[in-house]
Amino acid sequence: MLGSISKGEVDIVIPTIRNLDFLEMWRPFFEAYHLIIMQDGDPSNVIKVPEGFDYDLYNRNDINRILGPKAHCISFKDGSCRCFGFLVSKKKYIFTIDDDCFVAKDPSGKEINALQKHIENLQTPSTPYFFNTLYDPYREGTDFVRGYPFSLREGVPTAVSHGLWLNVPDYDAPTQLVKPLERNTRYVDAVMTIPKGTLFPMCAMNLAFNRELIGPAMYFGLMGEGQPIGRYDDMWAGWCMKVVSDHLGFGVKTGLPYLWHNKASNPFVNLKKEYKGLFWQEELIPFFQSVSLPKDCTTAQKCYIELSKQVKARLGKIDEYFNKLADAMVTWIEAWEELNPSGA
Amino acid sequence: MLGSISKGEVDIVIPTIRNLDFLEMWRPFFEAYHLIIMQDGDPSNVIKVPEGFDYDLYNRNDINRILGPKAHCISFKDGSCRCFGFLVSKKKYIFTIDDDCFVAKDPSGKEINALQKHIENLQTPSTPYFFNTLYDPYREGTDFVRGYPFSLREGVPTAVSHGLWLNVPDYDAPTQLVKPLERNTRYVDAVMTIPKGTLFPMCAMNLAFNRELIGPAMYFGLMGEGQPIGRYDDMWAGWCMKVVSDHLGFGVKTGLPYLWHNKASNPFVNLKKEYKGLFWQEELIPFFQSVSLPKDCTTAQKCYIELSKQVKARLGKIDEYFNKLADAMVTWIEAWEELNPSGA
Repeated sequence: MLGSISKGEVDIVIPTIRNLDFLEMWRPFFEAYHLIIMQDGDPSNVIKVPEGFDYDLYNRNDINRILGPKAHCISFKDGSCRCFGFLVSKKKYIFTIDDDCFVAKDPSGKEINALQKHIENLQTPSTPYFFNTLYDPYREGTDFVRGYPFSLREGVPTAVSHGLWLNVPDYDAPTQLVKPLERNTRYVDAVMTIPKGTLFPMCAMNLAFNRELIGPAMYFGLMGEGQPIGRYDDMWAGWCMKVVSDHLGFGVKTGLPYLWHNKASNPFVNLKKEYKGLFWQEELIPFFQSVSLPKDCTTAQKCYIELSKQVKARLGKIDEYFNKLADAMVTWIEAWEELNPSGA
Repeated sequence: MLGSISKGEVDIVIPTIRNLDFLEMWRPFFEAYHLIIMQDGDPSNVIKVPEGFDYDLYNRNDINRILGPKAHCISFKDGSCRCFGFLVSKKKYIFTIDDDCFVAKDPSGKEINALQKHIENLQTPSTPYFFNTLYDPYREGTDFVRGYPFSLREGVPTAVSHGLWLNVPDYDAPTQLVKPLERNTRYVDAVMTIPKGTLFPMCAMNLAFNRELIGPAMYFGLMGEGQPIGRYDDMWAGWCMKVVSDHLGFGVKTGLPYLWHNKASNPFVNLKKEYKGLFWQEELIPFFQSVSLPKDCTTAQKCYIELSKQVKARLGKIDEYFNKLADAMVTWIEAWEELNPSGA
């Protein structure tokens, strides 16, 4: 069955600083799988995980022990530490979810199995080269419409499935401040491929990907303690990942599944984290829109190393931070290759 | 109110060969507006229009009379003759609809005012340069998500609103043959901008556009009697229009509104019309994906003339038909300028 998957094929990665009571609601959907819990902040804190879940928990001490001098590429006091979980996983698929996200219901009132829908998205092809007006052509009850080239109907492998959020939408701090009460109540019953050459804001609240295809490009950058910026970890990963996926011929989907995002984070705290990003972004987007990777970059690792060079060459002038980030990107790939030796 | 519009701002263009009984169902939505009825086929046939509608009807004799030697650019015995209606209209907006399309209902059971929704789509900006994961950011209850560059939030003028179909989907003949019973029952509650650089299959069953912005690029080509191909009129217009819109910085939306498409056309007849298109298309798409218009093409007319030259230069080798088509594209623009003198 499409979307069905064995325990050996997926890890659920959850970054957190608190007890994982939210897992109770996910029990019917997550209990059969393995969790990687990324404990952020003070490693001496004890995080309680409800009984019955199978998990590994990593804290800062584990990161330092496992990565040694390379540990600096993993952020501290920031949710972006989740990418360490991608590094130590050995599974084909990753589903990562925030601990303030709950099970949503579809319009019929049925609880949505977000994990299953993500896997279904990842197991079916993407169509990045031409837009299908009836959305996902591989879905039951629909197809490619008249005028869709037949040579493109096979599609390409799907690297990423980006899910959405009912209730509290993923807004930046200025929008949060301007629209504190806005809630997303619209269930849009669609999955679509984001076309080749088009960038989008990838949010990590509800995200799945094929680790074998794109894992090395899923680095969440340097955020949190000691860094000048926050809340751009998933954006950075999304831009890098999209450029690499476009180059390698992989697809990126967005849309279903929804989950229920419970609590808006503090907009003033968010503004402090974001504000440099809000204007840096205006230079980053043209960079990612124009970046070009050479043909001999045939793996996500090679693409990512090349990207790090271009980041240093073209973004270093914005702020010294981008030189540090470019170095960390290289360290990340070194760590990836150490923990995931080629051919293994 | 968004989506509201005066009679002086819109024409509804309907190509037909039969009595327009289908208008009864549209009466509450269309009666206050002006219709342009394009009678296809034998001009001596009499087409009955229900009482109370304000319309002009044009048949082949009218086309010949008005366009004289340029009349050959308007197809005969093919719905693509509808573009003559775009030519003689003097309105800002065009809504064109097929005569086998009826009023659809939204999931709450409410009848959908397709015209109003199209106008709303055309009156609000598009966002072709970056994908917004919560779809149309200008819609009530939603916005741009975190990570969407602020410099792009103003959007660009919208040239085209492409609506969809419940019940009988717009499939090509092979898909019709393979899935004769497939019906579209999924109401996807979204409007989105098709990103810059991405082509899509534009269907004219349920289509609106800003005639002032993009009218000259809305030519439906040479189809029907005496031509080697049919059912690619709207596709051709859509590819040309998208390339021109991308160049001029206009947006193209797809999604809502739905209408109810009643009857699948005969797949065997369709196959006969389509079959050359099915393989020609494989060369047309790479052409349109790679076409580039020079900077001095600052109007839709200039873009279209330039496009006609490139069609002749690069597609003429596929079949002599494309040389004829390129010439007809020029004739179309001459006719457009004759009937719509600049500055008028």
